[in-house]
Amino acid sequence: MDDLLIIVLAAGKGTRMNSSRNKMLHGLAGRPLIKHVVDTSRELTDDIVCVVGHQAEKVRGAAGEEVEFVFQEDQQGTGHAVWQAEEYIRSHSGDTLVLYGDTPLVTAETLKDYINNHRRRQAGMSILTAELDDPAGYGRILRDESGSIMDIVEEHDCRGEEAQIKEINAGIYCFASQLLHEALKQIDNDNAQNEYYLTDCLYYIKEKAELASAEGDPAEIIGINDRSDLAAAEKVMQRRIKSAHLDRGVTLIDPERTYIEKRVEIGRDTTIYPGVTLRGETRIGRECLLEPGCQLKDARLAEKVNVLQGSVIRKSRIERETSVGPYAYIRPGCSIARGCKIGDFVELKKASVGEGSKVPHLTYVGDAEIGSGCNVGAGTVFANYDGENKHKTVLGDGVFVGSNTTLVAPLKLEDGAKTGAGSVVVDDVKSKTTVLGVPARFYKRED
Amino acid sequence: MDDLLIIVLAAGKGTRMNSSRNKMLHGLAGRPLIKHVVDTSRELTDDIVCVVGHQAEKVRGAAGEEVEFVFQEDQQGTGHAVWQAEEYIRSHSGDTLVLYGDTPLVTAETLKDYINNHRRRQAGMSILTAELDDPAGYGRILRDESGSIMDIVEEHDCRGEEAQIKEINAGIYCFASQLLHEALKQIDNDNAQNEYYLTDCLYYIKEKAELASAEGDPAEIIGINDRSDLAAAEKVMQRRIKSAHLDRGVTLIDPERTYIEKRVEIGRDTTIYPGVTLRGETRIGRECLLEPGCQLKDARLAEKVNVLQGSVIRKSRIERETSVGPYAYIRPGCSIARGCKIGDFVELKKASVGEGSKVPHLTYVGDAEIGSGCNVGAGTVFANYDGENKHKTVLGDGVFVGSNTTLVAPLKLEDGAKTGAGSVVVDDVKSKTTVLGVPARFYKRED
Amino acid sequence: MDDLLIIVLAAGKGTRMNSSRNKMLHGLAGRPLIKHVVDTSRELTDDIVCVVGHQAEKVRGAAGEEVEFVFQEDQQGTGHAVWQAEEYIRSHSGDTLVLYGDTPLVTAETLKDYINNHRRRQAGMSILTAELDDPAGYGRILRDESGSIMDIVEEHDCRGEEAQIKEINAGIYCFASQLLHEALKQIDNDNAQNEYYLTDCLYYIKEKAELASAEGDPAEIIGINDRSDLAAAEKVMQRRIKSAHLDRGVTLIDPERTYIEKRVEIGRDTTIYPGVTLRGETRIGRECLLEPGCQLKDARLAEKVNVLQGSVIRKSRIERETSVGPYAYIRPGCSIARGCKIGDFVELKKASVGEGSKVPHLTYVGDAEIGSGCNVGAGTVFANYDGENKHKTVLGDGVFVGSNTTLVAPLKLEDGAKTGAGSVVVDDVKSKTTVLGVPARFYKRED
Repeated sequence: MDDLLIIVLAAGKGTRMNSSRNKMLHGLAGRPLIKHVVDTSRELTDDIVCVVGHQAEKVRGAAGEEVEFVFQEDQQGTGHAVWQAEEYIRSHSGDTLVLYGDTPLVTAETLKDYINNHRRRQAGMSILTAELDDPAGYGRILRDESGSIMDIVEEHDCRGEEAQIKEINAGIYCFASQLLHEALKQIDNDNAQNEYYLTDCLYYIKEKAELASAEGDPAEIIGINDRSDLAAAEKVMQRRIKSAHLDRGVTLIDPERTYIEKRVEIGRDTTIYPGVTLRGETRIGRECLLEPGCQLKDARLAEKVNVLQGSVIRKSRIERETSVGPYAYIRPGCSIARGCKIGDFVELKKASVGEGSKVPHLTYVGDAEIGSGCNVGAGTVFANYDGENKHKTVLGDGVFVGSNTTLVAPLKLEDGAKTGAGSVVVDDVKSKTTVLGVPARFYKRED
Repeated sequence: MDDLLIIVLAAGKGTRMNSSRNKMLHGLAGRPLIKHVVDTSRELTDDIVCVVGHQAEKVRGAAGEEVEFVFQEDQQGTGHAVWQAEEYIRSHSGDTLVLYGDTPLVTAETLKDYINNHRRRQAGMSILTAELDDPAGYGRILRDESGSIMDIVEEHDCRGEEAQIKEINAGIYCFASQLLHEALKQIDNDNAQNEYYLTDCLYYIKEKAELASAEGDPAEIIGINDRSDLAAAEKVMQRRIKSAHLDRGVTLIDPERTYIEKRVEIGRDTTIYPGVTLRGETRIGRECLLEPGCQLKDARLAEKVNVLQGSVIRKSRIERETSVGPYAYIRPGCSIARGCKIGDFVELKKASVGEGSKVPHLTYVGDAEIGSGCNVGAGTVFANYDGENKHKTVLGDGVFVGSNTTLVAPLKLEDGAKTGAGSVVVDDVKSKTTVLGVPARFYKRED
Repeated sequence: MDDLLIIVLAAGKGTRMNSSRNKMLHGLAGRPLIKHVVDTSRELTDDIVCVVGHQAEKVRGAAGEEVEFVFQEDQQGTGHAVWQAEEYIRSHSGDTLVLYGDTPLVTAETLKDYINNHRRRQAGMSILTAELDDPAGYGRILRDESGSIMDIVEEHDCRGEEAQIKEINAGIYCFASQLLHEALKQIDNDNAQNEYYLTDCLYYIKEKAELASAEGDPAEIIGINDRSDLAAAEKVMQRRIKSAHLDRGVTLIDPERTYIEKRVEIGRDTTIYPGVTLRGETRIGRECLLEPGCQLKDARLAEKVNVLQGSVIRKSRIERETSVGPYAYIRPGCSIARGCKIGDFVELKKASVGEGSKVPHLTYVGDAEIGSGCNVGAGTVFANYDGENKHKTVLGDGVFVGSNTTLVAPLKLEDGAKTGAGSVVVDDVKSKTTVLGVPARFYKRED
């Protein structure tokens, strides 16, 4: 949106989180709270200023590099926090939107409607409000008989029937930037808390321009104050994420028992059983099957990949029609071609596996290239570590590794090589040659 | 019920599922939608006709062999769909019940009450209705002052206060078959959609006979239109299934986190932890324990079997007092006798295990018969595959297999045979004989 | 509280549980129902008498040793049950609180308030009541116009508008002990059930002293009658337990999908993913990470321990900055020092592991002491069992065990010893010495 400055307030500690980490750093759907607010802000404008204070460096890191930061030395109230961004407001010709870093559920759509309303009404200040059945804990909106906003009264300042008011202040404000700048110069800290309240700007602005309001969805304006709030917000976020996947044609047997982080993509007609966890930049193709208890992080799956019960895949790529698990552990840096079978109790680490190859059970594959059409017997270990360095093992195409073989890297088995069961292979094996024994020696060669 | 014909409408594609598969094929509690409706129908009558169209062959396969099928070439409305079954209706002397294939939650009890009411009232047509707080999306029931049904008005045709009516059409109809046949000949497609509406039969029939109605449970009449509906229906179905198990004396620590397909049976005093998945024809005896994250499909468990965390059992049989897991993987075709221990990171495939035998850890057993009182050491591999064929291994009673042994099939170890740790056994071993080495050779014989 | 006697009624079978075990023995948050009521009682007084009958010995065992027991031969009603404790009541100068063993959710705080109210009012009998929207199944409280309790009417005796009364009898009573003793002598079994009802004491006592009441939280007074009730009570209990952990600064990504037994302790800033099960006396330090599907029972974790997906830890101790799993299985009696890595598909049993040692994959470690700075290769088996006895293996510091090694116990590898891949080690290995082969022989010695 044109001429929009967003100030994100993220300087407080968040004491009620009962944490050694700043509240803004706590995660929601796999990203820090502050990052959610920054991402939403970026859908509206590039002019974003974060006010940081407690654990400022970490909060900056979590917010990302594409926003500006100002530092609030002491916590002297919300008005004081916004004033730290004075240099940005002073010269700004449009509107300033003030958001809290701990209100991560508000959507860009809601904010756009809200700002459009503010602009249509040419308001000096707009307040996002909500109707709550239980308004306890929130500031209440006081209106006069004509419906105009008169004041925002904090919970503890409510008198008489004011506490019964169900229209509350969501803590999201839009200001004409110049009026905000003027108003911030007027407010004082002559109150019980000795703080500068941003809401006090209202008294100045209402003399100069209209006060507007827009009603928001109560589910969006939840602020995160403690870990119960965080869990509640995660629930809302998860519902949103999973509802979108359902609409796009993904079958979630039990959406409430599927955990999907924000940036995950899933293809149509993929079926996901309960207890699956999808994290990071995971992308899943069409018609895949994910059985109970799988965890994928930064995984890429092509079409028709089956991931059986409890498998863990991290930062690896699986091509179509391959089956993984149950209980396979694919560590970062693996690439598995089409039509493979990676079975149970198998660990792969920095390994590539060629088309149609099988590693069916109880095997460790580390630092390896496996060609196509290979079969790796149960109990095989790619011994990549000599106590000091890691070494690589290369298998050509059509290699048959007997059960309980140890492949001592660095090592190369050429196309069609075979090892006998229980062999310890320390020397390279030529094409179509069978070796066996401890250590493995030449046995025969097929022609 | 006597003289009852059921027509199941299953010809549509179900576009809102956003799927390459016909809606009827999507699964609920482990069975296709259409199969649920067919199974419920079969509790009432053997005379069932499915009207199929989109992906007709697959829908036929899913509906099963015991029903008749008629094919609807084009989608020209519900009246047209029912007309495809004209040959069945024409000669039918009793009543015809029309069901949608995407309404899988309606129970036989509800339908029986409904048909009995229809017959008691000697009605020409009966409509199953429900009272919904939010009737949006459903056709509304219009009644005159005496309470008689005057019309069914589709949502988009509602005028004035009609949209406020909370009594809706559940889409389940019972007709006197001959009146239905007459009425279907009368209806036309002279409307905005150019479709033949089954509900238009009402205008003809109400001139000839009474229109009746019965009120159904809103939870039963949910139609599946998209994946969110499917997930919601699964939740209802799961609650029903689990409520029945609780009543029969099964302890579910967290019923909401246990997934049980429709045909599963569980004995009294069995305890099931959260995160268990029970599928297919699984039958579990009394006083079993299933720890978190187990998945059983077509498994048979006798009494007092413990299945520890994360174990997967498919199409296999486990006798009483045997313990499995954690993280055992029992593949199809296994049979495990009484008092055995199949431990962690163990895969069994087409294997029988005799009474009291132990395979405690990190072992692959494939294509094997293991006698009673055996002990198979950790790291053992039954090497059943030579790259071309699978072969069998037979262990007698009281065999002791040392750790990290490789048993190269075909192979037979007679009663009381032993292998040294790390052996590769390629030749049969006589009774009470110990072999060791790579390859394993005679070491000693006990007398 | 002074002069307080608590009588816990636990003699019934609990037929509706449909179980071969007495209802009192069924578990809630990892403890038998009766134990919850006893534990709550012990927060109020040491004078506790349990009335037992069906499966009396087992119920005694579950209730614990610090309470008295009396035996009720036949089930002749609640008044008869309390009368079995006559010897305790007769001589008691204070108040007697009667609790049901199947009401495990009532809290000590609620009971204290209730008894304090009873004493402040100098009441002869106090009834804990609750307001229920759906009072079906409970006895109703009848009051006169002044609000005084007139009677308690059982559901099936309700006449006219009595069934509409929403104030119900929670089944928890406090009596002046001497008045209770007198009253019990007066009541008879002249009713349809031929039972002595404890509530009939009301008629005697109201002639002598005031009847008081206090209102309890409906969520606390749930009685467990069947397995659905048990599951519902577990849900309430779990919410309480998890709410407390959230308040203390634990992050539960999805509290509803985390199962935590009552006595578990968790440090601040520990993050727990969905699907984790924490049982027994488990204590977890600060800043730990527990990935999906882990199960810990009686485990002790220091700070910054990572337990990766699906790991199972039983009765073992893990020091700080150690990483476990995914899919590690730590059996009872293990002790793992700081900075270790116990990886995937690894079983440890009665093993100690020294600082910084690694057992990264596919290994069985049984009956072992491993020094610091060791590395145990994939596929290694500690062969601790010879078919008759278990033996011990000791590794010094800095030992390197090659992949697929079998260590045949009893065995000692001194500091800096090494084994070649695929070795079968049957003899002790001296310091800094490398052995290899089957069986392993001296290869070289570093100086």
